[in-house]
Amino acid sequence: MKKNRPTILVVNDDGIIAPGIKALIEVAKEIGEVTVVAPDSPQSGTGHAITISKPLRLDRVEMYEGVEMYKCSGTPVDCVKLAVNKVFKGKKPDICVSGVNHGLNNSINVIYSGTMSAAVEGAIEEIPSVGFSLDDLSWTANFEPCKKFIRQIILQVLQNGLPKGVLLNVNFPNGENIKGFKVCRQANAKWKEEFDERQDPYRRNYYWLTGVFQNFDKGEDSDVWALEQGYASIVPVQFDLTAHHAMGLLNTWDWNV
Amino acid sequence: MKKNRPTILVVNDDGIIAPGIKALIEVAKEIGEVTVVAPDSPQSGTGHAITISKPLRLDRVEMYEGVEMYKCSGTPVDCVKLAVNKVFKGKKPDICVSGVNHGLNNSINVIYSGTMSAAVEGAIEEIPSVGFSLDDLSWTANFEPCKKFIRQIILQVLQNGLPKGVLLNVNFPNGENIKGFKVCRQANAKWKEEFDERQDPYRRNYYWLTGVFQNFDKGEDSDVWALEQGYASIVPVQFDLTAHHAMGLLNTWDWNV
Repeated sequence: MKKNRPTILVVNDDGIIAPGIKALIEVAKEIGEVTVVAPDSPQSGTGHAITISKPLRLDRVEMYEGVEMYKCSGTPVDCVKLAVNKVFKGKKPDICVSGVNHGLNNSINVIYSGTMSAAVEGAIEEIPSVGFSLDDLSWTANFEPCKKFIRQIILQVLQNGLPKGVLLNVNFPNGENIKGFKVCRQANAKWKEEFDERQDPYRRNYYWLTGVFQNFDKGEDSDVWALEQGYASIVPVQFDLTAHHAMGLLNTWDWNV
Repeated sequence: MKKNRPTILVVNDDGIIAPGIKALIEVAKEIGEVTVVAPDSPQSGTGHAITISKPLRLDRVEMYEGVEMYKCSGTPVDCVKLAVNKVFKGKKPDICVSGVNHGLNNSINVIYSGTMSAAVEGAIEEIPSVGFSLDDLSWTANFEPCKKFIRQIILQVLQNGLPKGVLLNVNFPNGENIKGFKVCRQANAKWKEEFDERQDPYRRNYYWLTGVFQNFDKGEDSDVWALEQGYASIVPVQFDLTAHHAMGLLNTWDWNV
Protein backbone atom coordinates (compact mmCIF):
# COMPACT_ATOMS: atom_id res chain seq x y z
CA MET A 1 0.00 0.00 0.00
CA LYS A 2 1.39 3.42 -0.96
CA LYS A 3 1.99 5.85 1.86
CA ASN A 4 -0.27 8.87 2.40
CA ARG A 5 -2.94 7.54 0.11
CA PRO A 6 -6.31 7.28 1.89
CA THR A 7 -7.88 3.85 2.38
CA ILE A 8 -11.32 3.49 0.83
CA LEU A 9 -13.90 0.77 1.55
CA VAL A 10 -16.36 0.28 -1.32
CA VAL A 11 -19.66 -1.57 -0.82
CA ASN A 12 -23.03 -1.74 -2.57
CA ASP A 13 -26.34 -3.61 -2.63
CA ASP A 14 -26.67 -4.48 -6.33
CA GLY A 15 -23.87 -7.03 -6.02
CA ILE A 16 -20.17 -7.14 -6.80
CA ILE A 17 -20.59 -7.46 -10.56
CA ALA A 18 -22.91 -4.44 -10.95
CA PRO A 19 -21.78 -1.65 -13.28
CA GLY A 20 -22.59 0.90 -10.56
CA ILE A 21 -19.94 -0.39 -8.17
CA LYS A 22 -17.45 -0.57 -11.05
CA ALA A 23 -17.96 3.15 -11.67
CA LEU A 24 -17.45 3.90 -7.97
CA ILE A 25 -14.29 1.76 -7.85
CA GLU A 26 -12.89 3.61 -10.87
CA VAL A 27 -13.28 6.97 -9.12
CA ALA A 28 -12.03 5.65 -5.77
CA LYS A 29 -8.88 4.10 -7.34
CA GLU A 30 -7.72 7.52 -8.51
CA ILE A 31 -7.96 8.86 -4.97
CA GLY A 32 -6.76 6.05 -2.74
CA GLU A 33 -6.14 2.41 -1.93
CA VAL A 34 -9.39 0.56 -2.56
CA THR A 35 -10.85 -2.46 -0.77
CA VAL A 36 -14.19 -3.83 -1.98
CA VAL A 37 -16.49 -6.02 0.12
CA ALA A 38 -19.74 -6.51 -1.77
CA PRO A 39 -22.63 -8.97 -1.89
CA ASP A 40 -22.31 -11.97 -4.21
CA SER A 41 -25.97 -11.50 -5.27
CA PRO A 42 -28.40 -8.59 -5.59
CA GLN A 43 -29.53 -7.24 -2.20
CA SER A 44 -31.80 -4.35 -3.18
CA GLY A 45 -34.46 -3.54 -0.61
CA THR A 46 -32.74 -5.40 2.21
CA GLY A 47 -32.63 -2.27 4.37
CA HIS A 48 -30.58 -2.66 7.53
CA ALA A 49 -30.97 -6.45 7.62
CA ILE A 50 -28.19 -8.52 9.19
CA THR A 51 -27.69 -12.26 8.78
CA ILE A 52 -28.09 -14.22 12.00
CA SER A 53 -29.92 -17.39 10.98
CA LYS A 54 -27.29 -18.73 8.61
CA PRO A 55 -23.50 -18.56 8.37
CA LEU A 56 -21.73 -15.98 6.23
CA ARG A 57 -19.21 -16.58 3.48
CA LEU A 58 -16.46 -14.12 2.61
CA ASP A 59 -14.17 -14.97 -0.29
CA ARG A 60 -11.39 -13.08 -2.02
CA VAL A 61 -11.89 -12.53 -5.76
CA GLU A 62 -9.79 -10.98 -8.51
CA MET A 63 -11.72 -8.57 -10.69
CA TYR A 64 -10.03 -5.19 -11.08
CA GLU A 65 -6.27 -4.61 -11.08
CA GLY A 66 -4.87 -3.04 -7.95
CA VAL A 67 -8.10 -3.50 -5.98
CA GLU A 68 -8.47 -5.89 -3.05
CA MET A 69 -11.89 -7.50 -3.52
CA TYR A 70 -14.11 -9.82 -1.51
CA LYS A 71 -17.53 -11.23 -2.28
CA CYS A 72 -19.88 -11.85 0.64
CA SER A 73 -22.94 -14.07 0.92
CA GLY A 74 -24.69 -11.64 3.27
CA THR A 75 -26.44 -8.29 3.20
CA PRO A 76 -24.78 -4.92 2.59
CA VAL A 77 -24.67 -4.34 6.35
CA ASP A 78 -23.00 -7.73 6.84
CA CYS A 79 -20.42 -6.65 4.23
CA VAL A 80 -19.49 -3.57 6.25
CA LYS A 81 -19.29 -5.54 9.50
CA LEU A 82 -17.10 -8.24 7.89
CA ALA A 83 -14.94 -5.59 6.22
CA VAL A 84 -14.24 -3.80 9.50
CA ASN A 85 -13.70 -6.95 11.51
CA LYS A 86 -12.11 -9.48 9.12
CA VAL A 87 -10.58 -7.43 6.29
CA PHE A 88 -9.44 -4.22 7.99
CA LYS A 89 -9.15 -6.13 11.30
CA GLY A 90 -10.26 -3.13 13.34
CA LYS A 91 -7.96 -0.62 11.56
CA LYS A 92 -10.68 1.44 9.95
CA PRO A 93 -10.67 2.76 6.39
CA ASP A 94 -10.53 6.54 5.93
CA ILE A 95 -13.87 6.53 4.14
CA CYS A 96 -16.67 4.10 3.27
CA VAL A 97 -18.52 4.65 -0.01
CA SER A 98 -21.58 2.67 -1.08
CA GLY A 99 -23.10 2.31 -4.54
CA VAL A 100 -23.41 3.63 -7.10
CA ASN A 101 -26.95 2.30 -6.74
CA HIS A 102 -28.94 1.50 -9.87
CA GLY A 103 -32.00 3.59 -8.94
CA LEU A 104 -32.71 6.53 -6.62
CA ASN A 105 -32.47 6.34 -2.85
CA ASN A 106 -33.86 9.77 -2.15
CA SER A 107 -36.59 10.62 0.35
CA ILE A 108 -38.11 7.66 2.26
CA ASN A 109 -36.15 5.20 0.08
CA VAL A 110 -33.18 5.76 2.39
CA ILE A 111 -34.91 3.44 4.87
CA TYR A 112 -35.48 0.50 2.48
CA SER A 113 -32.15 0.76 0.68
CA GLY A 114 -29.36 -1.73 1.21
CA THR A 115 -26.94 0.75 -0.34
CA MET A 116 -27.82 3.44 2.20
CA SER A 117 -27.96 0.96 5.09
CA ALA A 118 -24.37 -0.05 4.31
CA ALA A 119 -23.37 3.62 4.55
CA VAL A 120 -25.35 3.95 7.80
CA GLU A 121 -23.45 0.94 9.19
CA GLY A 122 -20.18 2.59 8.14
CA ALA A 123 -21.19 5.67 10.12
CA ILE A 124 -22.17 3.55 13.15
CA GLU A 125 -18.61 2.18 12.90
CA GLU A 126 -17.42 5.81 13.03
CA ILE A 127 -16.12 5.73 9.46
CA PRO A 128 -16.98 8.82 7.33
CA SER A 129 -19.54 7.31 4.96
CA VAL A 130 -21.40 8.25 1.79
CA GLY A 131 -24.04 6.44 -0.27
CA PHE A 132 -24.41 7.22 -3.99
CA SER A 133 -27.42 6.49 -6.22
CA LEU A 134 -28.39 7.28 -9.81
CA ASP A 135 -31.88 7.80 -11.16
CA ASP A 136 -31.68 4.84 -13.54
CA LEU A 137 -32.70 1.33 -12.50
CA SER A 138 -31.26 -0.33 -15.60
CA TRP A 139 -28.11 -2.45 -15.74
CA THR A 140 -26.89 -0.28 -18.66
CA ALA A 141 -27.24 2.99 -16.69
CA ASN A 142 -24.65 5.63 -17.64
CA PHE A 143 -22.59 6.50 -14.55
CA GLU A 144 -19.99 8.60 -16.42
CA PRO A 145 -21.64 12.00 -15.78
CA CYS A 146 -21.65 11.31 -12.02
CA LYS A 147 -17.97 10.54 -11.75
CA LYS A 148 -16.55 14.03 -11.30
CA PHE A 149 -19.21 14.75 -8.69
CA ILE A 150 -18.45 11.54 -6.80
CA ARG A 151 -14.77 12.47 -6.86
CA GLN A 152 -15.52 15.92 -5.40
CA ILE A 153 -17.68 14.46 -2.60
CA ILE A 154 -15.03 11.90 -1.63
CA LEU A 155 -12.32 14.59 -1.60
CA GLN A 156 -14.47 16.94 0.47
CA VAL A 157 -15.33 14.25 3.01
CA LEU A 158 -11.67 13.17 3.27
CA GLN A 159 -10.64 16.81 3.78
CA ASN A 160 -13.40 17.95 6.17
CA GLY A 161 -14.53 14.76 7.87
CA LEU A 162 -18.17 14.44 8.88
CA PRO A 163 -19.86 15.31 12.18
CA LYS A 164 -20.20 12.35 14.56
CA GLY A 165 -23.28 10.28 13.76
CA VAL A 166 -23.79 11.85 10.32
CA LEU A 167 -23.36 10.31 6.85
CA LEU A 168 -24.29 11.56 3.38
CA ASN A 169 -26.99 10.36 1.01
CA VAL A 170 -26.10 11.54 -2.52
CA ASN A 171 -28.50 11.06 -5.43
CA PHE A 172 -27.85 11.93 -9.07
CA PRO A 173 -30.36 12.82 -11.75
CA ASN A 174 -30.01 10.81 -14.94
CA GLY A 175 -28.41 12.41 -17.97
CA GLU A 176 -25.32 14.33 -19.08
CA ASN A 177 -26.11 17.72 -17.54
CA ILE A 178 -25.97 17.57 -13.76
CA LYS A 179 -26.27 21.21 -12.70
CA GLY A 180 -24.29 20.89 -9.46
CA PHE A 181 -24.95 19.98 -5.82
CA LYS A 182 -27.76 21.00 -3.46
CA VAL A 183 -27.64 20.24 0.27
CA CYS A 184 -31.19 19.05 1.02
CA ARG A 185 -33.48 17.49 3.56
CA GLN A 186 -35.29 14.16 3.01
CA ALA A 187 -38.57 14.90 1.19
CA ASN A 188 -41.87 14.02 2.84
CA ALA A 189 -42.88 11.27 0.43
CA LYS A 190 -43.82 7.60 0.57
CA TRP A 191 -44.73 4.61 -1.56
CA LYS A 192 -48.37 3.83 -2.06
CA GLU A 193 -47.99 0.10 -2.26
CA GLU A 194 -49.90 -2.06 -4.62
CA PHE A 195 -49.72 -5.82 -4.87
CA ASP A 196 -49.87 -7.66 -8.14
CA GLU A 197 -51.99 -10.71 -7.25
CA ARG A 198 -51.41 -13.90 -9.27
CA GLN A 199 -52.21 -17.58 -9.06
CA ASP A 200 -49.58 -20.30 -9.20
CA PRO A 201 -50.09 -23.56 -11.18
CA TYR A 202 -51.49 -25.11 -7.98
CA ARG A 203 -54.19 -22.40 -7.75
CA ARG A 204 -52.69 -20.74 -4.71
CA ASN A 205 -52.50 -16.95 -4.69
CA TYR A 206 -49.25 -15.03 -4.44
CA TYR A 207 -48.30 -11.37 -4.56
CA TRP A 208 -45.61 -9.17 -6.07
CA LEU A 209 -44.94 -5.94 -4.24
CA THR A 210 -45.26 -2.92 -6.52
CA GLY A 211 -46.16 0.68 -5.81
CA VAL A 212 -46.34 4.31 -6.79
CA PHE A 213 -44.05 6.97 -5.34
CA GLN A 214 -46.06 9.83 -3.84
CA ASN A 215 -44.42 13.16 -3.01
CA PHE A 216 -46.37 15.28 -0.52
CA ASP A 217 -43.56 17.81 -0.18
CA LYS A 218 -43.93 21.27 -1.76
CA GLY A 219 -40.66 22.62 -0.33
CA GLU A 220 -37.76 23.81 -2.48
CA ASP A 221 -35.18 22.38 -0.11
CA SER A 222 -36.01 18.67 -0.44
CA ASP A 223 -34.04 16.02 -2.29
CA VAL A 224 -36.96 15.24 -4.58
CA TRP A 225 -37.15 18.92 -5.59
CA ALA A 226 -33.38 19.21 -6.19
CA LEU A 227 -33.35 16.13 -8.44
CA GLU A 228 -36.35 17.43 -10.40
CA GLN A 229 -34.39 20.63 -10.99
CA GLY A 230 -31.43 18.65 -12.36
CA TYR A 231 -29.17 18.90 -9.29
CA ALA A 232 -27.41 16.13 -7.38
CA SER A 233 -28.96 16.05 -3.90
CA ILE A 234 -26.90 15.68 -0.72
CA VAL A 235 -28.86 14.81 2.42
CA PRO A 236 -27.02 14.51 5.74
CA VAL A 237 -28.44 11.40 7.42
CA GLN A 238 -28.38 10.38 11.10
CA PHE A 239 -29.01 7.09 12.87
CA ASP A 240 -30.19 8.62 16.13
CA LEU A 241 -33.86 8.02 15.36
CA THR A 242 -35.11 9.78 18.52
CA ALA A 243 -37.89 12.26 17.76
CA HIS A 244 -36.50 14.67 20.35
CA HIS A 245 -39.25 17.21 19.60
CA ALA A 246 -41.90 14.72 20.79
CA MET A 247 -40.40 13.96 24.22
CA GLY A 248 -42.00 16.94 25.97
CA LEU A 249 -45.44 16.05 24.68
CA LEU A 250 -45.12 12.41 25.76
CA ASN A 251 -44.19 13.51 29.26
CA THR A 252 -47.63 15.17 29.58
CA TRP A 253 -49.43 11.82 29.04
CA ASP A 254 -50.91 9.69 31.81
CA TRP A 255 -48.31 7.04 32.56
CA ASN A 256 -49.84 5.74 35.78
CA VAL A 257 -50.49 2.03 35.58
CA MET B 1 -67.13 -6.33 14.18
CA LYS B 2 -68.49 -4.58 17.26
CA LYS B 3 -69.19 -0.88 16.94
CA ASN B 4 -67.00 1.71 18.66
CA ARG B 5 -64.27 -0.80 19.39
CA PRO B 6 -60.91 0.31 17.95
CA THR B 7 -59.29 -1.79 15.23
CA ILE B 8 -55.83 -3.07 16.10
CA LEU B 9 -53.22 -4.49 13.72
CA VAL B 10 -50.74 -6.80 15.44
CA VAL B 11 -47.41 -7.74 13.80
CA ASN B 12 -44.03 -9.03 14.98
CA ASP B 13 -40.71 -10.38 13.73
CA ASP B 14 -40.34 -13.57 15.79
CA GLY B 15 -43.09 -15.24 13.77
CA ILE B 16 -46.79 -15.88 14.23
CA ILE B 17 -46.34 -18.75 16.72
CA ALA B 18 -44.08 -16.81 19.11
CA PRO B 19 -45.24 -16.45 22.73
CA GLY B 20 -44.48 -12.72 22.56
CA ILE B 21 -47.12 -12.01 19.92
CA LYS B 22 -49.59 -14.20 21.85
CA ALA B 23 -49.14 -11.94 24.88
CA LEU B 24 -49.67 -8.84 22.75
CA ILE B 25 -52.80 -10.33 21.15
CA GLU B 26 -54.21 -11.13 24.59
CA VAL B 27 -53.89 -7.50 25.67
CA ALA B 28 -55.14 -6.13 22.34
CA LYS B 29 -58.25 -8.37 22.37
CA GLU B 30 -59.45 -6.74 25.59
CA ILE B 31 -59.26 -3.31 23.98
CA GLY B 32 -60.43 -3.78 20.42
CA GLU B 33 -60.98 -5.84 17.30
CA VAL B 34 -57.70 -7.55 16.47
CA THR B 35 -56.20 -8.46 13.11
CA VAL B 36 -52.84 -10.23 13.04
CA VAL B 37 -50.53 -10.33 10.01
CA ALA B 38 -47.27 -11.93 11.06
CA PRO B 39 -44.34 -13.75 9.45
CA ASP B 40 -44.60 -17.52 9.03
CA SER B 41 -40.94 -17.88 10.13
CA PRO B 42 -38.54 -15.97 12.41
CA GLN B 43 -37.45 -12.62 10.92
CA SER B 44 -35.23 -11.20 13.64
CA GLY B 45 -32.59 -8.79 12.36
CA THR B 46 -34.29 -8.18 9.03
CA GLY B 47 -34.47 -4.44 9.68
CA HIS B 48 -36.52 -2.55 7.12
CA ALA B 49 -36.08 -5.20 4.41
CA ILE B 50 -38.84 -5.64 1.83
CA THR B 51 -39.27 -8.62 -0.48
CA ILE B 52 -38.87 -7.78 -4.16
CA SER B 53 -36.99 -10.74 -5.62
CA LYS B 54 -39.60 -13.39 -4.87
CA PRO B 55 -43.38 -13.49 -4.58
CA LEU B 56 -45.18 -13.15 -1.27
CA ARG B 57 -47.68 -15.53 0.29
CA LEU B 58 -50.46 -14.40 2.60
CA ASP B 59 -52.74 -17.06 4.07
CA ARG B 60 -55.52 -16.95 6.61
CA VAL B 61 -55.00 -19.15 9.66
CA GLU B 62 -57.12 -19.97 12.71
CA MET B 63 -55.19 -19.74 15.96
CA TYR B 64 -56.94 -17.63 18.61
CA GLU B 65 -60.70 -17.26 18.99
CA GLY B 66 -62.14 -13.97 17.81
CA VAL B 67 -58.91 -12.88 16.11
CA GLU B 68 -58.51 -12.54 12.33
CA MET B 69 -55.08 -13.99 11.58
CA TYR B 70 -52.82 -14.21 8.53
CA LYS B 71 -49.39 -15.71 8.13
CA CYS B 72 -47.07 -14.09 5.61
CA SER B 73 -43.96 -15.45 3.89
CA GLY B 74 -42.25 -12.05 3.89
CA THR B 75 -40.56 -9.67 6.28
CA PRO B 76 -42.27 -7.71 9.07
CA VAL B 77 -42.41 -4.66 6.77
CA ASP B 78 -44.04 -6.79 4.04
CA CYS B 79 -46.61 -7.88 6.67
CA VAL B 80 -47.61 -4.27 7.36
CA LYS B 81 -47.79 -3.42 3.64
CA LEU B 82 -49.94 -6.48 2.91
CA ALA B 83 -52.13 -5.78 5.94
CA VAL B 84 -52.86 -2.22 4.82
CA ASN B 85 -53.37 -3.10 1.18
CA LYS B 86 -54.91 -6.59 1.13
CA VAL B 87 -56.46 -7.11 4.57
CA PHE B 88 -57.66 -3.64 5.58
CA LYS B 89 -57.93 -2.71 1.88
CA GLY B 90 -56.89 0.87 2.49
CA LYS B 91 -59.20 1.41 5.50
CA LYS B 92 -56.51 1.80 8.13
CA PRO B 93 -56.54 0.27 11.61
CA ASP B 94 -56.69 2.67 14.56
CA ILE B 95 -53.35 1.45 15.87
CA CYS B 96 -50.50 -0.85 14.81
CA VAL B 97 -48.66 -2.72 17.56
CA SER B 98 -45.55 -4.83 16.96
CA GLY B 99 -44.01 -7.48 19.22
CA VAL B 100 -43.71 -8.33 21.97
CA ASN B 101 -40.16 -9.00 20.82
CA HIS B 102 -38.14 -11.71 22.51
CA GLY B 103 -35.12 -9.52 23.30
CA LEU B 104 -34.45 -5.79 23.70
CA ASN B 105 -34.71 -3.29 20.85
CA ASN B 106 -33.38 -0.34 22.76
CA SER B 107 -30.66 2.06 21.57
CA ILE B 108 -29.12 1.29 18.15
CA ASN B 109 -31.03 -2.02 17.98
CA VAL B 110 -34.02 -0.06 16.69
CA ILE B 111 -32.27 0.03 13.31
CA TYR B 112 -31.65 -3.74 12.98
CA SER B 113 -34.98 -4.84 14.43
CA GLY B 114 -37.74 -6.31 12.29
CA THR B 115 -40.18 -5.63 15.14
CA MET B 116 -39.35 -1.93 15.18
CA SER B 117 -39.19 -1.70 11.38
CA ALA B 118 -42.77 -3.02 11.22
CA ALA B 119 -43.81 -0.23 13.60
CA VAL B 120 -41.87 2.30 11.50
CA GLU B 121 -43.71 1.09 8.41
CA GLY B 122 -47.01 1.50 10.28
CA ALA B 123 -46.06 5.11 11.01
CA ILE B 124 -45.06 5.70 7.37
CA GLU B 125 -48.60 4.50 6.57
CA GLU B 126 -49.84 7.18 9.00
CA ILE B 127 -51.12 4.61 11.50
CA PRO B 128 -50.28 5.36 15.17
CA SER B 129 -47.68 2.65 15.85
CA VAL B 130 -45.82 1.15 18.78
CA GLY B 131 -43.16 -1.55 19.01
CA PHE B 132 -42.78 -3.56 22.23
CA SER B 133 -39.76 -5.61 23.34
CA LEU B 134 -38.77 -7.52 26.48
CA ASP B 135 -35.28 -8.05 27.84
CA ASP B 136 -35.43 -11.84 27.50
CA LEU B 137 -34.36 -13.62 24.30
CA SER B 138 -35.75 -16.98 25.35
CA TRP B 139 -38.86 -18.65 23.98
CA THR B 140 -40.09 -19.12 27.57
CA ALA B 141 -39.82 -15.43 28.43
CA ASN B 142 -42.45 -14.22 30.95
CA PHE B 143 -44.53 -11.48 29.31
CA GLU B 144 -47.15 -11.31 32.11
CA PRO B 145 -45.58 -8.39 34.03
CA CYS B 146 -45.57 -6.28 30.82
CA LYS B 147 -49.25 -6.69 30.07
CA LYS B 148 -50.72 -3.89 32.16
CA PHE B 149 -48.07 -1.51 30.82
CA ILE B 150 -48.80 -2.53 27.23
CA ARG B 151 -52.48 -1.94 27.90
CA GLN B 152 -51.81 1.55 29.25
CA ILE B 153 -49.64 2.49 26.24
CA ILE B 154 -52.24 1.29 23.74
CA LEU B 155 -55.00 3.19 25.57
CA GLN B 156 -52.89 6.36 25.74
CA VAL B 157 -52.00 6.21 22.04
CA LEU B 158 -55.64 5.58 21.08
CA GLN B 159 -56.73 8.52 23.23
CA ASN B 160 -54.01 11.05 22.34
CA GLY B 161 -52.85 9.97 18.90
CA LEU B 162 -49.20 10.46 17.99
CA PRO B 163 -47.53 13.41 16.25
CA LYS B 164 -47.17 12.96 12.48
CA GLY B 165 -44.04 10.98 11.62
CA VAL B 166 -43.53 9.70 15.17
CA LEU B 167 -43.93 6.18 16.59
CA LEU B 168 -42.99 4.68 19.96
CA ASN B 169 -40.27 2.20 20.86
CA VAL B 170 -41.16 0.57 24.19
CA ASN B 171 -38.74 -1.77 25.97
CA PHE B 172 -39.40 -3.67 29.17
CA PRO B 173 -36.87 -4.89 31.76
CA ASN B 174 -37.18 -8.55 32.63
CA GLY B 175 -38.81 -9.53 35.91
CA GLU B 176 -41.89 -8.96 38.02
CA ASN B 177 -41.18 -5.46 39.29
CA ILE B 178 -41.33 -2.93 36.46
CA LYS B 179 -41.08 0.43 38.24
CA GLY B 180 -43.08 2.42 35.67
CA PHE B 181 -42.42 4.32 32.43
CA LYS B 182 -39.64 6.71 31.46
CA VAL B 183 -39.76 8.77 28.26
CA CYS B 184 -36.21 8.50 26.92
CA ARG B 185 -33.88 9.17 24.03
CA GLN B 186 -32.05 6.44 22.11
CA ALA B 187 -28.78 5.74 23.94
CA ASN B 188 -25.47 6.32 22.17
CA ALA B 189 -24.41 2.69 21.99
CA LYS B 190 -23.40 0.15 19.36
CA TRP B 191 -22.43 -3.45 18.80
CA LYS B 192 -18.77 -4.29 18.64
CA GLU B 193 -19.10 -7.11 16.19
CA GLU B 194 -17.14 -10.27 16.37
CA PHE B 195 -17.26 -13.16 13.95
CA ASP B 196 -17.06 -16.75 15.03
CA GLU B 197 -14.92 -18.28 12.26
CA ARG B 198 -15.44 -21.99 11.50
CA GLN B 199 -14.60 -24.47 8.79
CA ASP B 200 -17.18 -26.57 6.97
CA PRO B 201 -16.61 -30.28 6.11
CA TYR B 202 -15.21 -29.13 2.72
CA ARG B 203 -12.55 -26.98 4.48
CA ARG B 204 -14.09 -23.72 3.46
CA ASN B 205 -14.36 -20.97 6.09
CA TYR B 206 -17.63 -19.50 7.22
CA TYR B 207 -18.63 -16.96 9.84
CA TRP B 208 -21.33 -16.46 12.47
CA LEU B 209 -22.05 -12.86 13.38
CA THR B 210 -21.76 -12.29 17.11
CA GLY B 211 -20.92 -9.20 19.09
CA VAL B 212 -20.78 -7.28 22.33
CA PHE B 213 -23.13 -4.40 23.14
CA GLN B 214 -21.18 -1.26 24.06
CA ASN B 215 -22.88 1.66 25.79
CA PHE B 216 -20.99 4.95 25.48
CA ASP B 217 -23.83 6.98 26.99
CA LYS B 218 -23.49 8.35 30.52
CA GLY B 219 -26.80 10.26 30.42
CA GLU B 220 -29.69 9.58 32.79
CA ASP B 221 -32.28 10.17 30.08
CA SER B 222 -31.38 7.28 27.72
CA ASP B 223 -33.30 4.05 27.20
CA VAL B 224 -30.34 1.94 28.32
CA TRP B 225 -30.21 3.89 31.59
CA ALA B 226 -33.98 3.61 32.22
CA LEU B 227 -33.94 -0.16 31.69
CA GLU B 228 -30.95 -0.54 34.01
CA GLN B 229 -32.96 1.32 36.66
CA GLY B 230 -35.90 -1.09 36.24
CA TYR B 231 -38.17 1.19 34.20
CA ALA B 232 -39.90 0.50 30.89
CA SER B 233 -38.35 2.89 28.34
CA ILE B 234 -40.44 4.81 25.79
CA VAL B 235 -38.47 6.40 22.95
CA PRO B 236 -40.33 8.46 20.35
CA VAL B 237 -38.86 7.43 16.98
CA GLN B 238 -38.93 9.25 13.64
CA PHE B 239 -38.27 8.16 10.08
CA ASP B 240 -37.14 11.53 8.81
CA LEU B 241 -33.46 10.61 8.96
CA THR B 242 -32.25 14.09 7.92
CA ALA B 243 -29.50 15.38 10.20
CA HIS B 244 -30.95 18.90 10.02
CA HIS B 245 -28.22 20.24 12.32
CA ALA B 246 -25.55 19.31 9.76
CA MET B 247 -27.03 21.14 6.77
CA GLY B 248 -25.51 24.53 7.59
CA LEU B 249 -22.04 23.03 7.92
CA LEU B 250 -22.32 21.17 4.62
CA ASN B 251 -23.29 24.37 2.86
CA THR B 252 -19.89 25.83 3.80
CA TRP B 253 -18.04 23.09 1.88
CA ASP B 254 -16.54 23.53 -1.59
CA TRP B 255 -19.12 22.10 -3.98
CA ASN B 256 -17.58 23.44 -7.20
CA VAL B 257 -16.86 20.64 -9.65
